[in-house]
Amino acid sequence: MAPQLDAYFSKVDELQDHFIERLRKAVAIPSVSSEDDRRPEVVRMGKFLESELKALGAHVEARPLGPQPHKEYLELPPVIIARYGEDPKKKTILVYGHYDVQPAAKEDGWATEPFELTIDDKGRMFGRGSTDDKGPVLGWLNAIEAHQKANIDFPVNLLMCFEGMEEYGSEGLDDFINAEAKKFFKDTDAVCISDNYWLGTEKPCLTYGLRGCSYYSIEISGPGQDLHSGVFGGTAQEPMTDLVRVMGSLVDTNGKIQIDGIKELVAPVTEEEKKLYEGIAFTMDNLHESLGSQTTIFEDKESTLMARWRFPSLSLHGIEGAFSAPGAKTVIPAKVIGKFSIRTVPNMEIPEVNRLVEAHVNKVFKTLNSKNTCKVVEQHSGKWWVASPKHWNFTAAAKAVESVFKVQPDLTREGGSIPVTLTFEQATGKNVLLLPMGSSTDAAHSINEKLDKRNYIEGIKLLGSYLQHVAIENVNES
Amino acid sequence: MAPQLDAYFSKVDELQDHFIERLRKAVAIPSVSSEDDRRPEVVRMGKFLESELKALGAHVEARPLGPQPHKEYLELPPVIIARYGEDPKKKTILVYGHYDVQPAAKEDGWATEPFELTIDDKGRMFGRGSTDDKGPVLGWLNAIEAHQKANIDFPVNLLMCFEGMEEYGSEGLDDFINAEAKKFFKDTDAVCISDNYWLGTEKPCLTYGLRGCSYYSIEISGPGQDLHSGVFGGTAQEPMTDLVRVMGSLVDTNGKIQIDGIKELVAPVTEEEKKLYEGIAFTMDNLHESLGSQTTIFEDKESTLMARWRFPSLSLHGIEGAFSAPGAKTVIPAKVIGKFSIRTVPNMEIPEVNRLVEAHVNKVFKTLNSKNTCKVVEQHSGKWWVASPKHWNFTAAAKAVESVFKVQPDLTREGGSIPVTLTFEQATGKNVLLLPMGSSTDAAHSINEKLDKRNYIEGIKLLGSYLQHVAIENVNES
Repeated sequence: MAPQLDAYFSKVDELQDHFIERLRKAVAIPSVSSEDDRRPEVVRMGKFLESELKALGAHVEARPLGPQPHKEYLELPPVIIARYGEDPKKKTILVYGHYDVQPAAKEDGWATEPFELTIDDKGRMFGRGSTDDKGPVLGWLNAIEAHQKANIDFPVNLLMCFEGMEEYGSEGLDDFINAEAKKFFKDTDAVCISDNYWLGTEKPCLTYGLRGCSYYSIEISGPGQDLHSGVFGGTAQEPMTDLVRVMGSLVDTNGKIQIDGIKELVAPVTEEEKKLYEGIAFTMDNLHESLGSQTTIFEDKESTLMARWRFPSLSLHGIEGAFSAPGAKTVIPAKVIGKFSIRTVPNMEIPEVNRLVEAHVNKVFKTLNSKNTCKVVEQHSGKWWVASPKHWNFTAAAKAVESVFKVQPDLTREGGSIPVTLTFEQATGKNVLLLPMGSSTDAAHSINEKLDKRNYIEGIKLLGSYLQHVAIENVNES
Repeated sequence: MAPQLDAYFSKVDELQDHFIERLRKAVAIPSVSSEDDRRPEVVRMGKFLESELKALGAHVEARPLGPQPHKEYLELPPVIIARYGEDPKKKTILVYGHYDVQPAAKEDGWATEPFELTIDDKGRMFGRGSTDDKGPVLGWLNAIEAHQKANIDFPVNLLMCFEGMEEYGSEGLDDFINAEAKKFFKDTDAVCISDNYWLGTEKPCLTYGLRGCSYYSIEISGPGQDLHSGVFGGTAQEPMTDLVRVMGSLVDTNGKIQIDGIKELVAPVTEEEKKLYEGIAFTMDNLHESLGSQTTIFEDKESTLMARWRFPSLSLHGIEGAFSAPGAKTVIPAKVIGKFSIRTVPNMEIPEVNRLVEAHVNKVFKTLNSKNTCKVVEQHSGKWWVASPKHWNFTAAAKAVESVFKVQPDLTREGGSIPVTLTFEQATGKNVLLLPMGSSTDAAHSINEKLDKRNYIEGIKLLGSYLQHVAIENVNES
């Protein structure tokens, strides 16, 4: 079976208004997973997907996840799983997306109504969830429909897993994926996730790595209750004094982690790897623009991308228990909790990182000779993920990019984490590919979220082309 | 005219239930000055004082202060000023107190309803405002009434100044006092303020000094907006990293201020002064109890009291703009504002302290070699105050303490500030005495605020006895 791209691409172009209408309907459902009173809207969005998939002839199941942890009065929205095609001669691709969205309100500063898809004269389609992640999710449905209407045999068996709690920690999803790995997902040959973004605005990318994240808190306490600094200042050892000194020992202005032993855990960078970074479409101007300032650590692209993807970083997030409001309050906080996290990379193992963090904090605190109590706690950890970009799953995607955009995609990592990636890899044992649809300027999670019409329509072509290329890739080549 | 203490004391004892009822009525008015919707209650409390004072035959005026700064829709509660007696042969004493209170709600953890005076079997009278400052304010009214009912000539002309915004920064009061210094308050011979507390629970004190307070913020900013630590961690210089390092350079665990030049501004301690501290009724156990822990800087009473009253201290209060909620958030804050204050003592002049603080922060920030921007701002400053405890105003008060409690009062300072003290001293040019009624365990500003019945009733005797002793003190002796 040879790829039938031209007919497919023409059909996508022909159906573009219809596909935009489908996105408009989806954006109009305010499926905000973090807001209790909008839970029915999340459920409604799941039902919308269910009915669209059924209309396309897919087998669909809405799987309940039970009550929400810590909010037992709320039912979690169901995971919508679906199968399209059951031909044992075809490869089976499992795709993941989410149908819930971040909160949004006009008052936050949106230029348009966040839950009304609004297209401007530059083809920017504004609306909450347009790029994160309703556009990409509908991309799969649209790819099915375009194949049907072009009378092209669908190239693979498609398994779909669409969740409704991604923006609230994917509650219940890991257990579900693990439970279904050998059941609903058992035929999976490879996994594709479209829930991240191009590095810039022009060149598509395939993403093969994510940093992990280990989050810590340092709790320092002493007095029995908050104190008046007039009465106690100068006579009591103050937890805040100790905390800022301990936090100040973790990392320097140039991002260099000061914890002994961390550097030694990082896999050495190979010469081959270094070369990968030179060709990537990214400039310091891109960084300055997204940063909104020139306050970067490095002056060159390669060091910057490596610092983002390839090396660990440590960020101080804040302090709980201290005075944090505007204005002036002369309190001596009795118990303060400093929060920081380390973005981890190969080959940093979580228990080893924990051990080094704990040893460092305890060592520094000891030098203070304080009578206060110091406790360091790992709040949560997610492991880094790196896939092989030489796998046929990536090769098919690279060819698909070339077929649609006439360029070779950048091979990128992400500095952030998408925990479900590692879950799918571990549960299925198969290669996972991140294949983004949106661009770096889409403002996911921010006001004025948008998806460019070009990214949506060409993205639908990309997803279909990817499946067609998957179908003809020789699985033994990698 | 000789003091007529016995008859006065008997009458106070006889009227004690009546005086407690007066306090009960006052506590029942939730005159919380910081809550907009309770402003009418503050006004109602002012009217209550006005009508009680009129009933006692005082000349009373409720003076408007205009709209509240930054909340122009709210009228400030009036200052209630009053005069009782106009005999040019008598001394004129100006007393100050406040009729507003801190917020309070049962849900905060109160054992009783905060706005219902509740007396337990140990004679503890629980209720918001009982000790701070409704008990002391009513103390002056009760002293007038007991003199009237005992048919004793009132020993002085009493000027009263009761404000309704003390717990919200005494908005508008300084200007008012300065404007009235040569008008309503022009006859003042000395000032007495009852709005602080005994050092312990058994021994009364006269307070002759307060530390000043200079409040600073250090604002460090860089990125145009908050950043995702996955995407930007390792590539951007983070304001929090710089801020904790700058804050960590200000003071050490043992409270030693690390700012060059501060130490040199402090007046040397004399041998005579040192001796004053030895006799004061205070133990390290008192400190451990109020601190709720053993995490003190010093192990002895003298060093501790000197550190509280006589030496400057620096406390770190918190950080605005960073993540401060419970839980975990992986944000890189774009702009963070560290807050700290220095408690100042003689002879630290505010402009000089500001100059040293600014120089230190800028010096330390420079060593970081950061591209971020650092700005240190003096948020507000109040000067220290020290009066002469040898003035007849203090001598009269000391004799009054002996007449009621049969002990010599401790001569104390306070580590905190009561800015109105300095305002009265500067506006009237007269000696100001702080004569507390409540004890160290009264929990002003906290849950379960109380005033012991003994402190209230003996306190009324104390205020009356003080006025009687004032009347016969020879003003030329000091």
